[in-house]
Amino acid sequence: MPHPLFERHRELLTRAVQAIRERSYWSAFPESASPKVYGEGAAEAGKAAFDKLLGQRFPLTQPATVGDVAGERSPFGLALGVTYPKPDIDGLFAAVGRAHDTWKKQDPETWAGVCAEILTRINKASFEIANAVMHTSGQAFLMAFQAGGPHAQDRGLEAVAYAWDEISRVPGKAHWEKPQGKNEPIRMEKRFRVVPRGIALVIGCCTFPTWNGYPGLFASLATGNAVIVKPHPGAILPLAITVRIAREVLAEAGLDPNVVTLFAHEAGSPVAQELALRPEVRIIDFTGSTANGRWLEEHARQAQVYTEKAGVNQIILDSAADMKAVARNVAFSLALYTGQMCTAPQNIYVPRGGIDTAEGHLSFDQVGEALADAVRKLTADPARAVEVLGALQNEGVLRRLEAARSLGTLILDTQAVAHPAFPEATVRTPLIVRLDTADRATYLNEWFGPIAFVIATADTAESLAIARDAVRGHGALTLSVYSTRDDVIARAVEVAEDAGVALSINLTGGVFVNQSAAFSDFHGTGANPAANAALTDAAYVASRFRVVQHRVHV
Amino acid sequence: MPHPLFERHRELLTRAVQAIRERSYWSAFPESASPKVYGEGAAEAGKAAFDKLLGQRFPLTQPATVGDVAGERSPFGLALGVTYPKPDIDGLFAAVGRAHDTWKKQDPETWAGVCAEILTRINKASFEIANAVMHTSGQAFLMAFQAGGPHAQDRGLEAVAYAWDEISRVPGKAHWEKPQGKNEPIRMEKRFRVVPRGIALVIGCCTFPTWNGYPGLFASLATGNAVIVKPHPGAILPLAITVRIAREVLAEAGLDPNVVTLFAHEAGSPVAQELALRPEVRIIDFTGSTANGRWLEEHARQAQVYTEKAGVNQIILDSAADMKAVARNVAFSLALYTGQMCTAPQNIYVPRGGIDTAEGHLSFDQVGEALADAVRKLTADPARAVEVLGALQNEGVLRRLEAARSLGTLILDTQAVAHPAFPEATVRTPLIVRLDTADRATYLNEWFGPIAFVIATADTAESLAIARDAVRGHGALTLSVYSTRDDVIARAVEVAEDAGVALSINLTGGVFVNQSAAFSDFHGTGANPAANAALTDAAYVASRFRVVQHRVHV
Repeated sequence: MPHPLFERHRELLTRAVQAIRERSYWSAFPESASPKVYGEGAAEAGKAAFDKLLGQRFPLTQPATVGDVAGERSPFGLALGVTYPKPDIDGLFAAVGRAHDTWKKQDPETWAGVCAEILTRINKASFEIANAVMHTSGQAFLMAFQAGGPHAQDRGLEAVAYAWDEISRVPGKAHWEKPQGKNEPIRMEKRFRVVPRGIALVIGCCTFPTWNGYPGLFASLATGNAVIVKPHPGAILPLAITVRIAREVLAEAGLDPNVVTLFAHEAGSPVAQELALRPEVRIIDFTGSTANGRWLEEHARQAQVYTEKAGVNQIILDSAADMKAVARNVAFSLALYTGQMCTAPQNIYVPRGGIDTAEGHLSFDQVGEALADAVRKLTADPARAVEVLGALQNEGVLRRLEAARSLGTLILDTQAVAHPAFPEATVRTPLIVRLDTADRATYLNEWFGPIAFVIATADTAESLAIARDAVRGHGALTLSVYSTRDDVIARAVEVAEDAGVALSINLTGGVFVNQSAAFSDFHGTGANPAANAALTDAAYVASRFRVVQHRVHV
Repeated sequence: MPHPLFERHRELLTRAVQAIRERSYWSAFPESASPKVYGEGAAEAGKAAFDKLLGQRFPLTQPATVGDVAGERSPFGLALGVTYPKPDIDGLFAAVGRAHDTWKKQDPETWAGVCAEILTRINKASFEIANAVMHTSGQAFLMAFQAGGPHAQDRGLEAVAYAWDEISRVPGKAHWEKPQGKNEPIRMEKRFRVVPRGIALVIGCCTFPTWNGYPGLFASLATGNAVIVKPHPGAILPLAITVRIAREVLAEAGLDPNVVTLFAHEAGSPVAQELALRPEVRIIDFTGSTANGRWLEEHARQAQVYTEKAGVNQIILDSAADMKAVARNVAFSLALYTGQMCTAPQNIYVPRGGIDTAEGHLSFDQVGEALADAVRKLTADPARAVEVLGALQNEGVLRRLEAARSLGTLILDTQAVAHPAFPEATVRTPLIVRLDTADRATYLNEWFGPIAFVIATADTAESLAIARDAVRGHGALTLSVYSTRDDVIARAVEVAEDAGVALSINLTGGVFVNQSAAFSDFHGTGANPAANAALTDAAYVASRFRVVQHRVHV
């Protein structure tokens, strides 16, 4: 008899498994923040729930609490003042170990059912979480709602679907009957049990705490592992709410809530490394810097480590049917959340001699000007601009942006925008700098933030060659090409497949290269240095569990 | 239009996929060496093919050959005198790289079809391969035929089935249509391409060159990777024949034969490490010592490394319905191929106070004597004994065996057996030594070969506790329990699942703990230090390829 939570969500899980097999459009959690979808007053109630958290000890009763953690600041200037339990590391691991021992003995239906229930409850808290994401990441509200809410929930469910799909194909038992010629066959009964790897650690980032955190959290949970969630010290709240809900669901189901725990810490604490090296930790999911990701890959040898690190995303501009549409699309990609996305484009390769468009040939400078113009138009009205740009997450982005201004000829300088609602927020428009192919030392590094380089190349063949080498050598999550020529598109596909990066072709409408849709787009490939795994595919879940068999004659 | 080789083997592959889903009994390649199965004269033709190889340069035309490799010796004393091409490492990698570039562009049906054709051809060469396995590993002929031939082929096909099954669930393309309320939906076409990781390296062992080599070889090949096969310097011939056949199939199919190459080297050469660290090598499959396996895991960071290393296999003797049947079964497990199997039992835990059997209580000494007696009976007749024991593969096993004689009280001393057909072969019967629980430093190490310890424990609870800790700390491929008590069986299952090791319960018939049947038993779990992967499950194949997508508006 499967767990009641599995029965409750059987249809949802079945539909999600269908979605990962088809990878056409599907979504479990609606992205529209409309009252028609989430109910009248839902937005207000979520805001009120968020407000109630401010200035308080976060309502999370965890074992082995020895103090408080604080220190988050809202990029919009709101005083958060939330404190979190500070765990004693040995004490917490002891409690999580006990929880793991009970969780791993549940059947896979229970794992999947509990995960689906947690996600469904998280969905109901989307407005509370949206405010928490907004006031930690600096995303504008609607983006915080969509990316931090339903889109992140979809990514979580996608991971559950992959886990469930993989586990379902391990038979629980088998009757083995080996013929022996004229003699009686040998008969055995074999039982196969899915066992989790151990305790899993999710290391969150400060820009997309839920979107990047949920896949690892739910992939590990749905394969029977207990999960310790370690948020970025600058974005604790969205994951604290997540952990609170997960623990509520577990407790209500009569399970040990310590299957999911929060390990908050303040900036500068070395505890992340200590956690990562604990022998009990057998799985780590990480989103963050290349330096920290590589450190984990090098040192956390006891664990299966999944990392998403930095990369250099690129656009190859070869020719355009409608340059205005191209520029509008690219401008939006640069401006969205001020380029603070791991998928945001940085390098835009344009032939030195310009490009052909339906309106005639455009010189290199005219292409740069078209891009600059589109950004200007997009960000002209402050009230509208801030809803696209959001705020700079931290001082580091601002310093990088300022430093980038002297890297080459400015095509478009960055501008400060006064936020009508949050005067303390640091809001900046994208910077566009002209570079030459020789400036490799500059453009082959990631300049995370609203910094774009328009790089003059000999021709599109050179653009493609640089792009390929950059993906291979420095990693990338996205590649984009604009061309009216079939042979260029075909060559770009070849380069993308060779180098191992997802390619978007001629995006001029309502889809942007930085967007990756759950259940359809794979986020990352695992085939280049930017990430050693994709969200989500079979490889992302298959090593989170093992199969242990026993056999006996019958 | 799928590749003709895929069409030829579609039914076989479909049946193999069904088998891995059910994991009940199935075999593609018959294990009977009878002329009724393999045809009149097949055995003689295979022997003749093998004889023709002796004293010759092995017929393998590979690029970048710069000399000869020799040095194998038959444990049965036969002069082999086969030489192999010695490759220039850079030259070979250049050729393999070119082959990889063409192989990776084939579709998954071609990968699967070519693999199935290679395996089918290898099956036809089973007698030639059996002789090669016998005269490198020291296995007796029938075992060399079965384990080195059809069983190994089944393991290879099992890997192809898992690879094909995983790849099949990645849709080649998807139509993505996202509703936009009253507006036209956004429509995109997405294409998903399976791309291999890179060049794969298979590092063979000297005891089961084909059985342990085929899973990695075919898992990598079926996921689009070119494979370099590096045999153990003591067991080159079986893999050389394998590579020769693979290259013939590739060439006949109009493909680059360098998709599969042999990298033979002589003992003591550091080339294995050099190969393993090549940046082009992205997958390594290894079977061998713990030291070498750990070195690979530590150093070959550019690659996905799958290792099968040493372990301590254990039997828990609690009680028996039929002690004679237990002793017969255990004796065969100790004697089979002189214990030179990674799955052979080493530690036999028996309560100090003896055990209950259907024929009454037996003292600890009586249990030891029953085991010794069963080994004596099994090996009494030299002509029959050598067909079970085979020959010692190398001097190291003999030295270890001699050293083990002074580790404790002898329950059964090892005996030299004169091989009626091969007087030069070193044939030895199993040694059984009594130890106490305090002798951990001895019995927690692997004593590879015909060395068994009967260890006196306080009771079965202590036996289980030691067994669990040994699996966790030192690794194991097998665990076996004998008991007439349901609670002991249940506890043993719990220990096995906790520690992550396959458990056999009350084996007294024609199945032995060292045997692992393709398509049904998982060999290794990946959950304890003996192996970081299982043969074969989804995790074994899912990380050998990546998915790269592109998307465009329609």
